[in-house]
Amino acid sequence: MRDVYSEQLDSIFGDLAAICRRVQTAVAQATLALMTGDASVAEQVISQDVEIDRAREQVEDTAFSLLSLQQPVAGDLRTIVAALRMVGELERMGDLSVHVAKVARLRVPDVAVPEEVRPTMSRMAAVAEDMVSRVCDVISGRDVEAAIALGRADEEMDQLRRTSFAELLSDDWQHGVEAAVDIALLGRYYERIADHAVSIANRVIFVVTGHNPAPAA
Amino acid sequence: MRDVYSEQLDSIFGDLAAICRRVQTAVAQATLALMTGDASVAEQVISQDVEIDRAREQVEDTAFSLLSLQQPVAGDLRTIVAALRMVGELERMGDLSVHVAKVARLRVPDVAVPEEVRPTMSRMAAVAEDMVSRVCDVISGRDVEAAIALGRADEEMDQLRRTSFAELLSDDWQHGVEAAVDIALLGRYYERIADHAVSIANRVIFVVTGHNPAPAA
Repeated sequence: MRDVYSEQLDSIFGDLAAICRRVQTAVAQATLALMTGDASVAEQVISQDVEIDRAREQVEDTAFSLLSLQQPVAGDLRTIVAALRMVGELERMGDLSVHVAKVARLRVPDVAVPEEVRPTMSRMAAVAEDMVSRVCDVISGRDVEAAIALGRADEEMDQLRRTSFAELLSDDWQHGVEAAVDIALLGRYYERIADHAVSIANRVIFVVTGHNPAPAA
Repeated sequence: MRDVYSEQLDSIFGDLAAICRRVQTAVAQATLALMTGDASVAEQVISQDVEIDRAREQVEDTAFSLLSLQQPVAGDLRTIVAALRMVGELERMGDLSVHVAKVARLRVPDVAVPEEVRPTMSRMAAVAEDMVSRVCDVISGRDVEAAIALGRADEEMDQLRRTSFAELLSDDWQHGVEAAVDIALLGRYYERIADHAVSIANRVIFVVTGHNPAPAA
């Protein structure tokens, strides 16, 4: 019985990593839809989100049955509770990708992001996607060093948000209110995806070490 | 031993309701700061958020020790796991109030919300605050009927968001990009506060009935 239990506990992290890869695809596709104005790619992100939701439910069911049938203590308990939270955050990252895809879809056949602010928005999307990719590795390898490094990647996202606001509030801005509002909200969505990646990385640190990481200065 | 356990389980819901009341105050004060441009009220919301964070940690510690020492099953287990999630959502609602307060502070001595869009923004803030107030009652009374009703209040928020976008994208908009971006982000913060209130109400339904409510049509 104990063997099956250990396997189930390990498999939860495998399931989380698999969901994380789906989220990574959703972020990448949402960005593609956004930058190209491709409605069918946007639709894919929106319609495939239900699969992330379903995978989350499975992890919750597994975690719940482990809690109730095995009555784990200490490290195992910490792992299962952390898994429940991580899967909630992954689902939320999927939702945020859907928000990005919906902005893209709303502007088809146009592209929501004007030419001259594309470098900043593309970089923001790339940083978010990279952070998701890295947190998938953190999950599957329970890699504390990589998790700590991820907290620092968040600084570039903060800087990009400031740059983005400066661009759309400059006197040279000629794309009106609608594009500015799109950019501000898109920036917010990518920033939240990055925040969740950092938060998940911190939960992995807690699972492995038993301690919460010190907050970044 | 069992008596202390039952008391602790009940006290978790009392703690959650108390945190919820703090969140309600934070939402109300953030709105006051926003509508009056009062920097000191904004500062209060920002500085007091740490108390919500601390109260969350206490609930987490209690929940964790109940899980590990009492090894609850079935309904009790469901309650504790739900409490862990609810407290995470309450903390997030506190963070969103801080975001509102920070927009207010950034525009002092001006007021971020132009005169003619105040009715919509005020109503959005009022709906959010009312939903928080109602979810506090749902938590303390474990009131399923009230929880179900809360899901429907969310519809007004969706409608208000649409009205708000129509206002700032209309040809009559004369307040420039900065105010429009503020309004769009503020709307998003209030909308998310409302979303979390509905989500917490749904968790209470799950705790009491053992079933997740059907999603709203």
